[in-house]
Amino acid sequence: MTPLALELQRTILAALPDPEAAARPELAAYARILRDYPQRGGKMLRGQLVVLTARAYGDDTAALEVAAALELFQNWVLIHDDIEDDSDERRGRPALHRLVPMPLALNAGDALHAVMWRLLAEAGARRKVLLEFAQLVETTASGQHLDLTWALEGRFDLSPEDYLEMVERKAAYYTAVAPLRLGALAAGALPDPIFAAAGLRLGVAFQIIDDVLNLEGDPRAYGKEVAGDLWEGKLTLILIDWLSRAPAEEVARAEALLALPRSRKDPEEVAWLHNRLLEAGSVSWAREYARELARPALEELDRAFSALPGREAANDAIELLAALVWRER
Amino acid sequence: MTPLALELQRTILAALPDPEAAARPELAAYARILRDYPQRGGKMLRGQLVVLTARAYGDDTAALEVAAALELFQNWVLIHDDIEDDSDERRGRPALHRLVPMPLALNAGDALHAVMWRLLAEAGARRKVLLEFAQLVETTASGQHLDLTWALEGRFDLSPEDYLEMVERKAAYYTAVAPLRLGALAAGALPDPIFAAAGLRLGVAFQIIDDVLNLEGDPRAYGKEVAGDLWEGKLTLILIDWLSRAPAEEVARAEALLALPRSRKDPEEVAWLHNRLLEAGSVSWAREYARELARPALEELDRAFSALPGREAANDAIELLAALVWRER
Repeated sequence: MTPLALELQRTILAALPDPEAAARPELAAYARILRDYPQRGGKMLRGQLVVLTARAYGDDTAALEVAAALELFQNWVLIHDDIEDDSDERRGRPALHRLVPMPLALNAGDALHAVMWRLLAEAGARRKVLLEFAQLVETTASGQHLDLTWALEGRFDLSPEDYLEMVERKAAYYTAVAPLRLGALAAGALPDPIFAAAGLRLGVAFQIIDDVLNLEGDPRAYGKEVAGDLWEGKLTLILIDWLSRAPAEEVARAEALLALPRSRKDPEEVAWLHNRLLEAGSVSWAREYARELARPALEELDRAFSALPGREAANDAIELLAALVWRER
Repeated sequence: MTPLALELQRTILAALPDPEAAARPELAAYARILRDYPQRGGKMLRGQLVVLTARAYGDDTAALEVAAALELFQNWVLIHDDIEDDSDERRGRPALHRLVPMPLALNAGDALHAVMWRLLAEAGARRKVLLEFAQLVETTASGQHLDLTWALEGRFDLSPEDYLEMVERKAAYYTAVAPLRLGALAAGALPDPIFAAAGLRLGVAFQIIDDVLNLEGDPRAYGKEVAGDLWEGKLTLILIDWLSRAPAEEVARAEALLALPRSRKDPEEVAWLHNRLLEAGSVSWAREYARELARPALEELDRAFSALPGREAANDAIELLAALVWRER
């Protein structure tokens, strides 16, 4: 973890209840559950992007708490997503609802959601910062609804446009648009309008790369189960591309597999589909698609940042944005 | 519903996405899911108490949005509680996760949580109001953790003191303390310190009466399933009292029943325990206990309100507080 990521983690953990100070053992357990995902760390790219953007605008005095709140968002939304998607793992460890009964994990997510807002209120965050947080939570929830609905209905007959709208809402907004806008707002500035359009495209590219790495990544380096998306029946651009080109009998075989609950999926069938996606070139095509989407977006963001006073932070921010898409893990 | 309750409901529904304006059918469904619990109405006692308290303090100009936000809290927390407790019904209709797949209901609760904060941010709520909201969500979640932990462990060997701490956190704070404090804060005043102590006792009494009505109420008037708490294995003061006095073999029989999941409970056994609680006097004892707890708390609150400038609203607030405990449904 970078020094900034460590500082963000310290800020988050300091805002959470301390198990040592709990009045009864059950509340010590509660405190430990709240601290579980934050303690797992993670790269904190979104939080770092908030701080770097605020520095690029020339004033990061209010950025740390805003960035920590965004990382808290990531933590509570992952707890709830893992329940909704019935995921096994998160950051190389069992998902929270596999460690404690699901109701306790759900409730802990709600508590972390409240801590996110408390952190903002304690820091005296401006009204526009609060509204941006509401926007990012609501946008993400609407995208999660689309994703869950299609997964529950076993819908894979979707167009790339359907997929892109879902992923813009579910992942791209909070991953790229919100950090850029929050960094500007934390610095007391009006966010550059290009942040919304270019950020959405970059955020979509980030998600596509995430899906590529899920099928290509080294299990130890990646920190999630490999091909977990296939086990979960998750809709990806990779699947949409392959399904649009595969022979009818392979499409039927794949859709039958994806529609099954995790526990009834045959590992050999999952391995078959995994190999088909790799061999048919859908995985490498998706990586190229993401990079083509990201390239002009990055150029536009580079231009916007080059006009800002904080030169070094602006360079770091652009480097971080590029790393979202050019990463290998 | 009173005119004030209707105004609160209108304020909430106006803040939620409109199914008619949705860009795609899936998002129209999303909007309908978000509006489901708010449309069911309810008495909105907590929201009304916010507005009446602000009026008693002489300034209700900022109170409506704060009150609507508190009612939104109630809505999203009930969606999540119903999932956590595996409840069948809410306000006379199936619980949300029985109408739509659980993941969609969970996600809708998160969206409503965000709308609660957006409403506050849009209204330009003061920092102290925001901090009070964080406090009430965090307090409720810590109480829910205690309640869920004991339910999951099948713990009924708890003392009345254990129960009272849980219910103070889980229900009393947001039911009575928070509305009183938020009403004062919305009026720009410092909350009377008696609100915390007296409000907690009154809120506990409210919860005990709720549990009494669950075992005594007319199913149509009450709007929840009768004896639903026994089906859910919910810890109540009524059970704690009865278990502390019942013969050992009846205690063993009751604990075995309560530990079973809902689907494996025998309706005749539930009816047996229900009758034992009524016949042994534990239900009527709990009602008396609640009223003895509420009486001095109400007197203290009456004194506090009698010093406030808004006479009519102060009387209405005290009447509403009394109705929390002296209600028959």
